[in-house]
Amino acid sequence: MSEKNKNIGIIGLGLIGGSLALKLIEQEYKVYGFVRDLARFKSSQKVSSQTEKSFAKLTENFEDLKDCDIVFVCTPLRLISGTLREIQPFLKPNSITTDVGSVKSLICEESKKFFRSDCFFVGGHPMAGTEKAGFNNSFPELFESKKWVLIEDKSLAPELISPLKKIINSTGAIIVETDAHKHDQAVAYISHLPLLLSIGLLETVNSIETQELKDLALDLASSGFESMTRLAKGNQVLNEDLLSLNLEQINTCFRDFSELSKKLLDK
Amino acid sequence: MSEKNKNIGIIGLGLIGGSLALKLIEQEYKVYGFVRDLARFKSSQKVSSQTEKSFAKLTENFEDLKDCDIVFVCTPLRLISGTLREIQPFLKPNSITTDVGSVKSLICEESKKFFRSDCFFVGGHPMAGTEKAGFNNSFPELFESKKWVLIEDKSLAPELISPLKKIINSTGAIIVETDAHKHDQAVAYISHLPLLLSIGLLETVNSIETQELKDLALDLASSGFESMTRLAKGNQVLNEDLLSLNLEQINTCFRDFSELSKKLLDK
Repeated sequence: MSEKNKNIGIIGLGLIGGSLALKLIEQEYKVYGFVRDLARFKSSQKVSSQTEKSFAKLTENFEDLKDCDIVFVCTPLRLISGTLREIQPFLKPNSITTDVGSVKSLICEESKKFFRSDCFFVGGHPMAGTEKAGFNNSFPELFESKKWVLIEDKSLAPELISPLKKIINSTGAIIVETDAHKHDQAVAYISHLPLLLSIGLLETVNSIETQELKDLALDLASSGFESMTRLAKGNQVLNEDLLSLNLEQINTCFRDFSELSKKLLDK
Repeated sequence: MSEKNKNIGIIGLGLIGGSLALKLIEQEYKVYGFVRDLARFKSSQKVSSQTEKSFAKLTENFEDLKDCDIVFVCTPLRLISGTLREIQPFLKPNSITTDVGSVKSLICEESKKFFRSDCFFVGGHPMAGTEKAGFNNSFPELFESKKWVLIEDKSLAPELISPLKKIINSTGAIIVETDAHKHDQAVAYISHLPLLLSIGLLETVNSIETQELKDLALDLASSGFESMTRLAKGNQVLNEDLLSLNLEQINTCFRDFSELSKKLLDK
């Protein structure tokens, strides 16, 4: 069976799920979009009837997962584990499920405990995003030339995972395979530490006590300050989740960072 | 005498001095460009004969300052105080000198000690720049809509400073007046702290000991990491000067930042 004949379920149509759906629909995949509240989704996200029709199905009912050969869980990070648990009874036998969460150890370890033995789970993390959340801001080119991490699982035969890989490749993303622990260490350095610094910087300037100095600082702030606080101004829910769910790794990075920065000032 | 009939000296034709020269020449000001080594400047900076001719004079001789009514000192930050001292014997009586250094207390305090009583000095700092140094990278629009700080000096009558202000306004910049101490505090928060964080982040990732982890981290690094390390990759000489010449203020900001960031991780 070619991938194009497989039904792809996407749970959560925010920026990531929405962009993935748009890209796969563009390539004539059959996409089932799953949202919590269909009426609310349609009104709040201004989904056109054209877009609506382009889905094979737009549903709030996990029972429709019975038709899905490949499932992407694209809910907010903190809801991924719960969603993976919740969908167990509905999954199609032999289907492959993946997720797009930016922290992997916890999700991959937990899912091992409860995942159905007649289905497959592979953790994933597309290194793509913008500051703007929601389906309204999604676009099919989001993954173009971006890295998409898949968590290696030596218990799975390569041919089982190959349909998932083909679909990911068709988004324009480049697959990088590693284990969950290494992934979480690496993203702590290049994604979560930068986020922490960006939030810390913005809070530092916002917390200047003398109003006159604060006003002057913000008045003089230029492109350097802008680019350093861009991440802090992004998706607030995701930012909080990232810092709390990968805390141990981020603490290590922040210690390294603090030591090195102090040395810069001691020179 | 209209500003256009005044001779403007620009000492140091790097990114800032060069862009200022190009902008003022474009507006038909008479610009004297001062460089350390004229032959080297012409060859290393690929100055066209057209550009060369557009200067009223291109010189390495401070004696030519005798013709200059307004002087901008645009050397690297660490050389500004020395240059201000060096030009004293050559300044035209009643001329106004300013500088473009990003740290102001030290320069303004020192200059008071030696500046000629028949000439005027006003500290300045255009909040403009790019990652690329040198005359080759300068362009007349650099200051458009950017803030340009002038350090208030109540001993100077407003009409004395007004020609300088007119020239600065003609670059498209917006003048902000404040005192040297407040300036240094404000830029520590919105310019030097961001720079320190950017350098610290880059060094943290570069110092990852395990090669495999470092490779993975750099492989997964995306636009967030790029924008957070942009400042660190800028003008290295300027970066070092900034951190060392405004150290006390930066230390204060970094302490505030460290406390707030630790709180974010303790949540």
